[in-house]
Amino acid sequence: MSPNNPPPAGLQLRSLVKSDGELEISLATVPTPEPAQDEVVVRIEAAPINPSDLALLFGAADIDTAELTGTDANPVLTAQIPERAMKGVAARVGQSLPVGNEGAGVVVAAGDSDGARLLLGKTVAVLGGAMYSQYRTIKTQQCLVLPDGTMPSEGASCFVNPLTALGMVETMRREGHKALVHTAAASNLGQMLNKICIKDGVDLVNIVRKPEQAALLRTLGASYICDSSAPTFMEDLTQALVATGATLAFDATGGGKLAGQILTCMEAALNRTTKEYSRYGSTTHKQVYLYGGLDTGPTEFNRNFGMAWGMGGWLLTPFLQRIGPHATQALRQRVVAELKTTFASSYSKEISLVEALRPEVIAVYAQRATGAKYLINPSKGP
Amino acid sequence: MSPNNPPPAGLQLRSLVKSDGELEISLATVPTPEPAQDEVVVRIEAAPINPSDLALLFGAADIDTAELTGTDANPVLTAQIPERAMKGVAARVGQSLPVGNEGAGVVVAAGDSDGARLLLGKTVAVLGGAMYSQYRTIKTQQCLVLPDGTMPSEGASCFVNPLTALGMVETMRREGHKALVHTAAASNLGQMLNKICIKDGVDLVNIVRKPEQAALLRTLGASYICDSSAPTFMEDLTQALVATGATLAFDATGGGKLAGQILTCMEAALNRTTKEYSRYGSTTHKQVYLYGGLDTGPTEFNRNFGMAWGMGGWLLTPFLQRIGPHATQALRQRVVAELKTTFASSYSKEISLVEALRPEVIAVYAQRATGAKYLINPSKGP
Repeated sequence: MSPNNPPPAGLQLRSLVKSDGELEISLATVPTPEPAQDEVVVRIEAAPINPSDLALLFGAADIDTAELTGTDANPVLTAQIPERAMKGVAARVGQSLPVGNEGAGVVVAAGDSDGARLLLGKTVAVLGGAMYSQYRTIKTQQCLVLPDGTMPSEGASCFVNPLTALGMVETMRREGHKALVHTAAASNLGQMLNKICIKDGVDLVNIVRKPEQAALLRTLGASYICDSSAPTFMEDLTQALVATGATLAFDATGGGKLAGQILTCMEAALNRTTKEYSRYGSTTHKQVYLYGGLDTGPTEFNRNFGMAWGMGGWLLTPFLQRIGPHATQALRQRVVAELKTTFASSYSKEISLVEALRPEVIAVYAQRATGAKYLINPSKGP
Repeated sequence: MSPNNPPPAGLQLRSLVKSDGELEISLATVPTPEPAQDEVVVRIEAAPINPSDLALLFGAADIDTAELTGTDANPVLTAQIPERAMKGVAARVGQSLPVGNEGAGVVVAAGDSDGARLLLGKTVAVLGGAMYSQYRTIKTQQCLVLPDGTMPSEGASCFVNPLTALGMVETMRREGHKALVHTAAASNLGQMLNKICIKDGVDLVNIVRKPEQAALLRTLGASYICDSSAPTFMEDLTQALVATGATLAFDATGGGKLAGQILTCMEAALNRTTKEYSRYGSTTHKQVYLYGGLDTGPTEFNRNFGMAWGMGGWLLTPFLQRIGPHATQALRQRVVAELKTTFASSYSKEISLVEALRPEVIAVYAQRATGAKYLINPSKGP
């Protein structure tokens, strides 16, 4: 694309929270900025809908109130945000925000630098926000070049889930734990984590909510699966913790009692192997990181797990900043090398930007249910 | 005391949880072990009743059910432990446990080593458990020699509260925070922490539950005091956090919503000084350590404080192990140097071992109320 031939404008999905409690999702036509010297323009062809995208997309709105307005060419989705939830989104009121953490596509224009020109025509994966857009102008260093023969749909989820799953194992090693617990374990991320742990020889205790999720993980070769809906859950979990010695958990649910129950069972498991009474409980540190909020209710726990415990938030970007660029690069290289095996994502459907605004489509993907993961293709027709 | 003249037997307070849910506190007559070469015998004359002692002493029993049985010479206190609380004390059932973390007294016998002989006649403070005893045989290195002219009652609380208060400030420095929040702030420990912070120029936000506690702290020169019973509490706390920049709290209550409210206000304070919307909240890490359990109910919080947060247990002994013997020694030296100023403890009453078993006395000191701190003198007559 020559400078005389500016990149085309494109559709971009926008989410807006209004001060009266209305959420509005629309498709804006935005100009595509001319690429600077070290920039390229990517035609986005695949962008996953991750739980972290849903939070930004729906801003605490009640999906049951979603209504489609506007025209066929210019659809607008509205939904109501309950008053009690408005405080949590106060900081974004009035700002029309683009959505989509990651995606993949083809480089269709490039700046003047050699690095940028080299990318022309390549399929690249990008972590950079606003991926629910037809075109994105971004820095070359934000592009991860995918091996020849890789489809955008295969590289769309290169960052969030793979790096999060690898980050969990890396956190385990760096903080001195020897095995892991994961909740919502049948998710796309959970399946990836199982593949990593099996490959790396790390014991992983999978907590699921339904028998069919347990069955799915068994087909992947998972060894330790505990169903939180079973009446024997606490005992099952304690036994798995005795067997694995896991003292670190990553919890996607956030709310409710699960995080505390994990600490309780960790303490019970540790006490089964000690003989002497210690008034302050086990001296082994037990940690649960809450990295998601599938359960938006309050978190509650009984402190019956001694004094050597911690609970806290865990987020990918600060984790990568902590480990530094060198260690981050090593994780990214592993993702590319194992993109079609360990880090292969599966989607139940590919949808267009217009379809992403249909209430009946939202009703499926907003559930965050196992096996209902959607991929947006912004370059697909309505 | 010569080897031909063995140390006298003495009374020792014991706490026993029976499998039927009865707590029994009694005074056993126990032989005093002959001191080994590097040991001394201390006649204990002062031992404080700290909240951590109460937990071991009463083992979750309902104090309202306390009854005095036995004889005048051999009193026995019994109380009932609610069935739901038995799980928490299961590991100590059937074990007659001595109580009393710390105390002070006079060295009345010594082993053959020079180090031990040098201590004869000295007043020493000891951290070593079983301090609600008339005599304790202990290693010389566990003794902290008090300056001449120091009474045992002045040195009885040399360890637990002073080192805990210093440990909070030290934790703040080591974990990169610049100011502190403390709950139950009018306690003996809280008063000490105020003196340290004023002396060291560290901003401290004091959270109390009653206006009279706020008044008490004001007389000590505290600058930031928030009363959690005030309707404006959340706003008062947020303003104090904006003023101080505190992102670390030590919470003595443990149960309830207070720890979460502190994180909520820390996040609100941080957001008042940032301009751009960050979907994951402030990137500044906010930490609350639960070091006590004045509220024995469940801990509950709403996760409305972003992802950069942590909650966890904090305990003195593992903290001292983490910082190592050199840093620990520096803290101990500061305590001795400022024993009659910064680290002066006040007690509302001195009681004997026999008095410690009287229900009407227990009713006062078991409340853990501000200004109702008792000192046990095991060498005092009944």
